[in-house]
Amino acid sequence: MQNKMYKLKDSEVVRFRNNTCLCIGTGRMGLALQKEYFEQLKLIQETIGFKWIRGHGLFHEDMSIYQEYKTEDGVVVPEFNFTYLDLVMDSYLELGIRPFLELGFMPKAIASGDQSVFYWQGNVTPPKDYAQWNDLVAATLQHLIERYGAKEVTSWPIEVWNEPNLNYFWKDADRKEYFKLFRETIYTVKKVDSNFRVGGPAICGVDDVSWLRDFLDFCRDEKIPIDFITRHLYTISVPERDGRYGYPKLRPLSKACSETDVSREIIDSYPEFRGMEMHVTEFSTSYSPRTPIHDTNINAAYIAFLLSRLGDTCESYSYWTFGDIFEEWGVPFTPFHGGFGLVANGKITKPAYWTFKFFKDLGNGECIHRSDEAIVLKKQDGTYRGIAWNVAAAKEGEEIRLCFTFEDSVSGGSEYCIVTRTVDEDTCNPLKIWHDIGEPANLSPAQGSLLREGASPLVATQRICGAPSVELKLGANALVYFEMFPVKTASDRGFDYKRAVNVEFVKE
Amino acid sequence: MQNKMYKLKDSEVVRFRNNTCLCIGTGRMGLALQKEYFEQLKLIQETIGFKWIRGHGLFHEDMSIYQEYKTEDGVVVPEFNFTYLDLVMDSYLELGIRPFLELGFMPKAIASGDQSVFYWQGNVTPPKDYAQWNDLVAATLQHLIERYGAKEVTSWPIEVWNEPNLNYFWKDADRKEYFKLFRETIYTVKKVDSNFRVGGPAICGVDDVSWLRDFLDFCRDEKIPIDFITRHLYTISVPERDGRYGYPKLRPLSKACSETDVSREIIDSYPEFRGMEMHVTEFSTSYSPRTPIHDTNINAAYIAFLLSRLGDTCESYSYWTFGDIFEEWGVPFTPFHGGFGLVANGKITKPAYWTFKFFKDLGNGECIHRSDEAIVLKKQDGTYRGIAWNVAAAKEGEEIRLCFTFEDSVSGGSEYCIVTRTVDEDTCNPLKIWHDIGEPANLSPAQGSLLREGASPLVATQRICGAPSVELKLGANALVYFEMFPVKTASDRGFDYKRAVNVEFVKE
Amino acid sequence: MQNKMYKLKDSEVVRFRNNTCLCIGTGRMGLALQKEYFEQLKLIQETIGFKWIRGHGLFHEDMSIYQEYKTEDGVVVPEFNFTYLDLVMDSYLELGIRPFLELGFMPKAIASGDQSVFYWQGNVTPPKDYAQWNDLVAATLQHLIERYGAKEVTSWPIEVWNEPNLNYFWKDADRKEYFKLFRETIYTVKKVDSNFRVGGPAICGVDDVSWLRDFLDFCRDEKIPIDFITRHLYTISVPERDGRYGYPKLRPLSKACSETDVSREIIDSYPEFRGMEMHVTEFSTSYSPRTPIHDTNINAAYIAFLLSRLGDTCESYSYWTFGDIFEEWGVPFTPFHGGFGLVANGKITKPAYWTFKFFKDLGNGECIHRSDEAIVLKKQDGTYRGIAWNVAAAKEGEEIRLCFTFEDSVSGGSEYCIVTRTVDEDTCNPLKIWHDIGEPANLSPAQGSLLREGASPLVATQRICGAPSVELKLGANALVYFEMFPVKTASDRGFDYKRAVNVEFVKE
Amino acid sequence: MQNKMYKLKDSEVVRFRNNTCLCIGTGRMGLALQKEYFEQLKLIQETIGFKWIRGHGLFHEDMSIYQEYKTEDGVVVPEFNFTYLDLVMDSYLELGIRPFLELGFMPKAIASGDQSVFYWQGNVTPPKDYAQWNDLVAATLQHLIERYGAKEVTSWPIEVWNEPNLNYFWKDADRKEYFKLFRETIYTVKKVDSNFRVGGPAICGVDDVSWLRDFLDFCRDEKIPIDFITRHLYTISVPERDGRYGYPKLRPLSKACSETDVSREIIDSYPEFRGMEMHVTEFSTSYSPRTPIHDTNINAAYIAFLLSRLGDTCESYSYWTFGDIFEEWGVPFTPFHGGFGLVANGKITKPAYWTFKFFKDLGNGECIHRSDEAIVLKKQDGTYRGIAWNVAAAKEGEEIRLCFTFEDSVSGGSEYCIVTRTVDEDTCNPLKIWHDIGEPANLSPAQGSLLREGASPLVATQRICGAPSVELKLGANALVYFEMFPVKTASDRGFDYKRAVNVEFVKE
Repeated sequence: MQNKMYKLKDSEVVRFRNNTCLCIGTGRMGLALQKEYFEQLKLIQETIGFKWIRGHGLFHEDMSIYQEYKTEDGVVVPEFNFTYLDLVMDSYLELGIRPFLELGFMPKAIASGDQSVFYWQGNVTPPKDYAQWNDLVAATLQHLIERYGAKEVTSWPIEVWNEPNLNYFWKDADRKEYFKLFRETIYTVKKVDSNFRVGGPAICGVDDVSWLRDFLDFCRDEKIPIDFITRHLYTISVPERDGRYGYPKLRPLSKACSETDVSREIIDSYPEFRGMEMHVTEFSTSYSPRTPIHDTNINAAYIAFLLSRLGDTCESYSYWTFGDIFEEWGVPFTPFHGGFGLVANGKITKPAYWTFKFFKDLGNGECIHRSDEAIVLKKQDGTYRGIAWNVAAAKEGEEIRLCFTFEDSVSGGSEYCIVTRTVDEDTCNPLKIWHDIGEPANLSPAQGSLLREGASPLVATQRICGAPSVELKLGANALVYFEMFPVKTASDRGFDYKRAVNVEFVKE
Repeated sequence: MQNKMYKLKDSEVVRFRNNTCLCIGTGRMGLALQKEYFEQLKLIQETIGFKWIRGHGLFHEDMSIYQEYKTEDGVVVPEFNFTYLDLVMDSYLELGIRPFLELGFMPKAIASGDQSVFYWQGNVTPPKDYAQWNDLVAATLQHLIERYGAKEVTSWPIEVWNEPNLNYFWKDADRKEYFKLFRETIYTVKKVDSNFRVGGPAICGVDDVSWLRDFLDFCRDEKIPIDFITRHLYTISVPERDGRYGYPKLRPLSKACSETDVSREIIDSYPEFRGMEMHVTEFSTSYSPRTPIHDTNINAAYIAFLLSRLGDTCESYSYWTFGDIFEEWGVPFTPFHGGFGLVANGKITKPAYWTFKFFKDLGNGECIHRSDEAIVLKKQDGTYRGIAWNVAAAKEGEEIRLCFTFEDSVSGGSEYCIVTRTVDEDTCNPLKIWHDIGEPANLSPAQGSLLREGASPLVATQRICGAPSVELKLGANALVYFEMFPVKTASDRGFDYKRAVNVEFVKE
Repeated sequence: MQNKMYKLKDSEVVRFRNNTCLCIGTGRMGLALQKEYFEQLKLIQETIGFKWIRGHGLFHEDMSIYQEYKTEDGVVVPEFNFTYLDLVMDSYLELGIRPFLELGFMPKAIASGDQSVFYWQGNVTPPKDYAQWNDLVAATLQHLIERYGAKEVTSWPIEVWNEPNLNYFWKDADRKEYFKLFRETIYTVKKVDSNFRVGGPAICGVDDVSWLRDFLDFCRDEKIPIDFITRHLYTISVPERDGRYGYPKLRPLSKACSETDVSREIIDSYPEFRGMEMHVTEFSTSYSPRTPIHDTNINAAYIAFLLSRLGDTCESYSYWTFGDIFEEWGVPFTPFHGGFGLVANGKITKPAYWTFKFFKDLGNGECIHRSDEAIVLKKQDGTYRGIAWNVAAAKEGEEIRLCFTFEDSVSGGSEYCIVTRTVDEDTCNPLKIWHDIGEPANLSPAQGSLLREGASPLVATQRICGAPSVELKLGANALVYFEMFPVKTASDRGFDYKRAVNVEFVKE
Repeated sequence: MQNKMYKLKDSEVVRFRNNTCLCIGTGRMGLALQKEYFEQLKLIQETIGFKWIRGHGLFHEDMSIYQEYKTEDGVVVPEFNFTYLDLVMDSYLELGIRPFLELGFMPKAIASGDQSVFYWQGNVTPPKDYAQWNDLVAATLQHLIERYGAKEVTSWPIEVWNEPNLNYFWKDADRKEYFKLFRETIYTVKKVDSNFRVGGPAICGVDDVSWLRDFLDFCRDEKIPIDFITRHLYTISVPERDGRYGYPKLRPLSKACSETDVSREIIDSYPEFRGMEMHVTEFSTSYSPRTPIHDTNINAAYIAFLLSRLGDTCESYSYWTFGDIFEEWGVPFTPFHGGFGLVANGKITKPAYWTFKFFKDLGNGECIHRSDEAIVLKKQDGTYRGIAWNVAAAKEGEEIRLCFTFEDSVSGGSEYCIVTRTVDEDTCNPLKIWHDIGEPANLSPAQGSLLREGASPLVATQRICGAPSVELKLGANALVYFEMFPVKTASDRGFDYKRAVNVEFVKE
């Protein structure tokens, strides 16, 4: 057991920016037509509520946007079909969320090659002719503006392509070609409406430093009107594979954010781009949709650490992804399969869901404590809210006892109530329940209910008198949310709680 | 800590009849028009699902059934208004529940006196003229048959009046007058349709033994075609009063069912009535809607004991009541106020709600264990289900450790999963949470959410190898539900649970 | 057949103010707890959407606000119970509507006498002691502010009592006593929060001229900080009675608004009150809840005339009432019973519902035509919307043919689409359907469906080329809504409407 | 105007079997995952309620059932993934509908060739190896039985493949190969559970007579345990093409059912198969998803004729299809596009939807009239229900006046009510409204509402005295439903309908 004692003063405010709810990731756009997808996103929006949603596949075949036909003279004429795009956007807006538009991948009909990525075969080659690509981009944005209004649509950020520094996402990871794509695209977008905000290069992990420098050089040299920089962040080693699954190791917390820190430094080193917004348009621990870590309690704790830090360097950071309707490596065989989602299929909340719910409830305020295992805010209404976690990789069972005392609070004779919500391996661990019932591939209704019941935090309250303080015990990989506020009891006439709960037997 | 060890054999079946879900009590019928009432009942029906619902006030003024007007000649003519009755019955049927019709109280216009009961002033005097009462009863049943069909409506049991042995429910507790009412009513009902089933005398607690004997003598002597006997059961001493509230003591478990046992014996002592159905049309610990015991964990444990026993002597036993939309002592000032309901206003499930949910889930099967703190069934599908409780009145903190070993089960190399759901003072105690946050009279939305979150059992699973056994630790006033079933794991290709949860850090 | 031709010019704007959706009437507040009430109001809010709702009975016994108890020393102490008030206000806010608070009637416990009004017995006597009344008012407003915030609650207008000029609503119709009540109340309210807006005297029809003058004299002389004037408007003669029902005659259109016109003149004749807001806190044709006129098509047409005029003199005008859950004369025996509602029980929209729906859809814009049978607006988006009606009392069958030509519209080669929605005795007349099926008191599900189906307008469209014009044929008591807008057709590749609908048989 | 008079007698019962609600068609199974699909089917099931649903694509790639992987030794191992299948079946069962399982098309991985059909590229070649196909079929059925139970799943009829007599649905339309497929499949299915019922050959229109004879010869000769015969029925000529659309002609009514009549005769000519069930697993007017006739009123009238006849020869007849989420020719560009659905995208009911609703409401009873334009039933409750239609191809504007008199009904002094629901080109013609507003490709919310409003029948009632008779006027392509039942009016005390609707003005 580690003991950690902290004295907190309202006057000692530390750095913290909570942009947790700005953006969330999603499986490809065509999946947004699905009922189960909608229901998972509805659950997320009703309880957390993100502003933007970002994923791949806007121009993929299953969205049917790009079509063409031959005239009698044999001329090929493009046609744009927005039937499904409207269905998707209508349902996003119905749920109070907006797209962070990623422009990609390439419709086969206008692609220069056959190379594709994923089970669903997204084409990753440049266009045969940039004019065709530009027409597609312009027609799509123009349609959205006609349907939803320019004010609405130009508030949706636009990102050009996905991870072009990886050769399975962009043919040959060809930098010059990407810069061309970027230039063509940004000018096309700005021509439709100059209020659109456009960014890139959406790079990820490999050779990212030189890529980012080259990209910024290009933007500076060609005076590209870029609005923000995007990149991705994953914090694992290369997974060891077994069958469908991968088992990676986690970067220690000290190195968890090094990629974003370095990117921030590079951007700020350019006078032209100093302070420019950086959006992490994907982040998680693992970058594979078959790494069981996503479903575990350690993931919840580790993500809590990330959410406490990423606002230092980034404008938004989009967890990859909200749910498990996701097909990059095919349709999952089982409800728990190491998918990216905060919610497993069957609408089962995973531990990391609670990390987001807790940072949503934490909200903003003055940060009076931030460490590797906790964050505490003083809220405008005078109450305190905090989150604590215990990333216990390879240190099974090591419990942390955290104790906060609040020095500046008005106390005296008054009383406080402390509410805690605990997510740990005993109280909110649906993966364990699923394992214990035999890892069923297809959940019966009763199994689904059991898993949903077993996927909620333990809620507890306590009353304390005198000086305000909060003591938390964090088992391995625990995540705890707390609130503390002053309480005055005004009991109803004749109501006496102690008497209420101390019932005696009639003596015989 | 008490240790209790039991070896259970499938062949040793003990007595137990689970009729938990036959009937549930309700506030007066006029309240069934309310939206909050409907929503609470909907929650109950979706998760537990009772067959019948019984309460007072069918003929009370707020249902507006009995009306009259004067002709120009000054003749008073009765009119029957079924607008509200239909609204109530429609919503009952929509929720899959049927009325257990209690005929009462007396419309003022045809009552012989002014005496009334409750804040809502139900008139408790005999009719001025039994012909008027009979017309009212017949017209009401006739209307129901026209609207819902004879087959449906004659399946609704009918009870004549409520607690006529108490002088605040029936003027002077006049036995002879009640017998007259019963005779008039049963013949009126049977004349409408002889398939109706009719019972009484709905007595409660005081002088009940002589009342029941006199009533049975009357039925026998006058050859009344009675179909079943009804009575009530409450298990407390007279409460001490403080302001609005009462604080009673509980009868020890050994005496909890003595009233129904005695009634059963009396009935069976008549050759004419031997084995006749007895319906407990009201039961709970306390008979007052302002006794905080209703909201506590000990109530849940005590009711569990009752549900394990009442089927021995009774056909149905109707918990009084499903929810806290209830006005006998006026409208409650606070969400927790010692009301009868399984659900508090704000749709917060009280501990006793879980007692019913657990007995619903227990269902039927072969009972292989019944004691003062537990019941265990072997289900037809070969699995085991059980419920355990620890009624810890005045013995705060005494924990029970229960251990069941199952002798006859197929074991060998196989594995079992045990699911437990625990309701106790730490894990599912909304009354404590409400107290800790200051006993607010009017819940904010956030307070309502917190209370609903804190009103669910802790769900846990475990896997055991070898001989099947279940060990339960029951803190004071705990209630635990468990299931045990054999498990074979068929892991997805490459999925390894241990590897999944034992994540290591990358070495630096 | 009357032919009426109008040439409309965009430049000739006439007077019209559309405040249709500001306020709507309701049965007493206690009924707002009911499920059927909520569902009817939900239907209204989802399709029309009023800002405020006003009715009686805030302080009536069924709301249980005023309570009292005796201490051991025999002192009577008041207690305020806001359980039901919160349920009602929560459901109003959930539906996006706010109360226009009418303070009344008098709780029996603090009333000076026994006189009551209505089946539900609202006490209409002054308080025994104004201090008790003031405490009740202050406590109630204070509670609402605590729960919903001062900004929200002070936006709810407050009216003092109801129709004190009628002796069945205020004992002896005692003016001086009312002025005292008004003075006590307004100062109490403003003391709670000076931002509250308070008005009166809520008079109706009888001797209203002298009452209003006396009231304004009183306010002027005593410098009462009144914020607005309220009155009621009904447009019928005294009904002839038959059984439960009344059959009144209608005032001709020329006199329909004379009461509000006169009130406006009186107010404006006071320099202190010139231009002060006047709210018609109740209006309809008939003032009785058993006059079948409410359910007819002529009512819809007549109310259309009123909605085209009342904005000239009044800030708001609150139709009495949105639905038929209403008990002033008892619970109705039949779904159609001449109740006040826009919606009949069973969620059946009456013809007058469509009057409100159409004025809602009309919205605001430049009024280019207003006559005794129509109103036409040019909307900001360049389209035209209008409503026409044919109040055909005692002139059965006289059809009107209305023809509007639009002189200033851009026309030339372009095309227009005209959408019409027709409510008349053939196309949207649920009262007739109910009569034809035998006037059933209790609707079966199939009958309810039939009535709902038969309670919708006939929707039609037409395309016109050349000069824009609209021709409408209005049968007796018809009500027609129309829109006209320019259309350009962009047919899908190969789609030909004429060919689509002219299908031929294969020749044999 | 044609006048047609019929005297109907209860004793003269004619042939008619109403199996309208047994089966309905659907777009490919993968589309059943979509939210819009679910909502359209929900609307259909709540108002019509079919027993079975049949479509293509069970084994198509987007359902992801057939998967395979290579072991380290390079052996390819099949894996079956039922994640999506369960989602689809769960949602079907939630909506009270069951699959009529069509086994097809071929997963690419086990197909012998590349030939595919449709935009979504269903592979139409035989399996490389029948053992692989049989494993797939067996594994799928086995999984369904495990999840839903054998009793449930074996009640789902099974059909082998789709339209193998057409070479774009089955390579080379190879009969022998189909017979092999059939034999392999039926034995595989019966081996899983002998209670499954299996049929074929699902032929359509071209050379169907010789195909059916060959198939029956094969079944007879090889003693194939076939349970029923299936075929399709479309009633148009080859459409003329223009762009995306086709414009066919309709077969005259006299030849509408000739294909099913001939098939019935062929089947009955085999002693072994005489009287065997024939299921029409697809029918409509046009067989193409881009023929605007599907959206017209003539389609509704023509389908009414078919529904009045098909029960003579067929057990079930499955309209192709319930909704317009359908991709065989790609995603539609516009809401009205000549798609197969009863419901257009946007949940707009097309005229043919009402044909099904009316036959659903017609139900069963004794048929006392059947002609080319009407059908009339006497129901068990003594009321009459009927449907009339006027297929007015190429005879625009010819109105039919139909008059039925009922000779045997009890009449005398009693009264009757006649309810009519009219669908015709003026009252329920959303295609016209869509055309009139400019044929918008993407409906705004207001346009969607307008179209849904304009897609309901005109409902009217009338009261007749004396001899019962029904007179109907049917405009071109009208469809009318009627009910006639005796009425006795019991007016509420004082209610007088005539007085209610004849309101006079106050005389000035």
